[in-house]
Amino acid sequence: MKKFIDSPDTLLETSLQGFAKAHADIVQLNNQPHFIRRNSVKAGKVALISGGGSGHEPLHAGFVGFGMLDAACPGQIFTSPTPDQMMAAAQAVDGGAGVLFIVKNYAGDVMNFEMAAEMLDLPNATVLVNDDVSLPKTHSIGRRGVAGTLVVEKIVGAAAEQGYDLAACKALGDKAVNATASMGVALSSCTVPALGHPTFSIADDEIEMGVGIHGERGRHTGKLVSASEIVEQLAGHIHEELNPHSGQQVLLHVNGFGATPLVELHLVYELAWQYWHKRGVNIVRSLVGNYTTSLDMAGCSLTLTLLDVEMLRLWDAPVNTAALRWGC
Amino acid sequence: MKKFIDSPDTLLETSLQGFAKAHADIVQLNNQPHFIRRNSVKAGKVALISGGGSGHEPLHAGFVGFGMLDAACPGQIFTSPTPDQMMAAAQAVDGGAGVLFIVKNYAGDVMNFEMAAEMLDLPNATVLVNDDVSLPKTHSIGRRGVAGTLVVEKIVGAAAEQGYDLAACKALGDKAVNATASMGVALSSCTVPALGHPTFSIADDEIEMGVGIHGERGRHTGKLVSASEIVEQLAGHIHEELNPHSGQQVLLHVNGFGATPLVELHLVYELAWQYWHKRGVNIVRSLVGNYTTSLDMAGCSLTLTLLDVEMLRLWDAPVNTAALRWGC
Repeated sequence: MKKFIDSPDTLLETSLQGFAKAHADIVQLNNQPHFIRRNSVKAGKVALISGGGSGHEPLHAGFVGFGMLDAACPGQIFTSPTPDQMMAAAQAVDGGAGVLFIVKNYAGDVMNFEMAAEMLDLPNATVLVNDDVSLPKTHSIGRRGVAGTLVVEKIVGAAAEQGYDLAACKALGDKAVNATASMGVALSSCTVPALGHPTFSIADDEIEMGVGIHGERGRHTGKLVSASEIVEQLAGHIHEELNPHSGQQVLLHVNGFGATPLVELHLVYELAWQYWHKRGVNIVRSLVGNYTTSLDMAGCSLTLTLLDVEMLRLWDAPVNTAALRWGC
Repeated sequence: MKKFIDSPDTLLETSLQGFAKAHADIVQLNNQPHFIRRNSVKAGKVALISGGGSGHEPLHAGFVGFGMLDAACPGQIFTSPTPDQMMAAAQAVDGGAGVLFIVKNYAGDVMNFEMAAEMLDLPNATVLVNDDVSLPKTHSIGRRGVAGTLVVEKIVGAAAEQGYDLAACKALGDKAVNATASMGVALSSCTVPALGHPTFSIADDEIEMGVGIHGERGRHTGKLVSASEIVEQLAGHIHEELNPHSGQQVLLHVNGFGATPLVELHLVYELAWQYWHKRGVNIVRSLVGNYTTSLDMAGCSLTLTLLDVEMLRLWDAPVNTAALRWGC
């Protein structure tokens, strides 16, 4: 394992300290338990909290700030955060209008956020993100939450900033989840520091279609084909799921898993743009880059969100976080 | 080679098309010859142009926009752009106040920008960036330009936006270069698509100290040591070069080479912060992320810039580009 690391035991804590220092104008780090929170709480605003295993940076801590999250609870790498983190975060950023949890659909995350919600002495609600179409809708534990989580956090974050109440934020979050579909492909595995070796093996001429953001198997292991063929497959499954009509306004998000250069991500974006352009879909907003990563995995995902007037307005609203910033 | 690619021959062009579409609110792509330019030219403003081999994205096209570059000329991967690109870009974004080239110190880039400058029928000047302290100052072809280029482009970009004339922009650029030092380390090689295999070899327990952004050898090939020891070495060489006094205000930039996760980059940032904090240096601004990359190389560099009041003000000035955005 070749990594910048002193010890797997101290990596996350030291990294969080660095993150908080580098972005001290926006966030601060709470210790015991760990969470990243906005510098200031806005009274009367619904508080938005997310979290999950680390290793997907900038998700979620990089999305804490004006117009997006109020706090993020980082677990150890690829490990769920604990209920005490979520409760402490909720109490710290509560603005008196309730707390909304945005949770990616993984058993540990769901269980711990549920536990925190039950024990919390504040009005609260949860939006469950399950945008990964590589698994069937009927899958026993449901579909995974992947790169579409950013879209949900951005849109609901803007709404909360604009004064939507808890019920309206929850309804909007569910609408954004239903309008969003993602699918990813891995060219390489990734290495969890505490493990010290790649989490799965993949041959030099193979790719993993429908991979999860922790390297979970998806649709199938296939041969390495051209970028055009890969994009056809990913976009095809997403298109089938969302079935956008001709003229439909959409957001297209190409997300890198960590080790794929931007020159390739922009190639993938162009090919995906062509795919939907041919079908009359109107790509009005775009986001290309490494936002929901899997440590040092090479690969990427496509995310499409069907935008209505409200969601487009909220996507465009000002945001000021470490990783997403405009209009501020 | 596992990459998202149809053919090495079409990768760059398709990628540039994707980049321009994804950021159509800020830039446009010129074909034959290729350059990325701002959507609108500001009359009476010095035009800032940079460029160089591709494979370092988001540098330079990701820095085109308000408050930074007016145009960027992308060569093929790790290959200098040609004088006709630079001349066409200069003519396209000339606002009547002259053209400043910001050039990283590589033989091909320097030669081609010089040729363009000579043939250009406009007042022009050049700032040469040579911030890499891994080579001695007396090196025959001089020191390489690496991640400090971003700092120079941001500071001079803000000045040009605020109405500095050509001579003032040139003097400021030289000042920023002299105030900036960088050094990098590679944990892995990178793969140029047209080549198809890693550009250099490095053993599983080795690191390349003082590596260039194309994988050029630097100070020495050493054993993989702890992140703390690596940061001590990198920071030590930079500190020796700039010799900041106690209380000196600085910008600390930790730049990822492409395949190193943010969780590690923030760890490196924290360790570098501690290094300079112990020495009484005042880190007032920070930037952590993948900005000057080497395709899929694992590794990172540290950059320190000594800030005076003018440079701090210009660093903070509004910027609106694909990769760097604040205050807009």
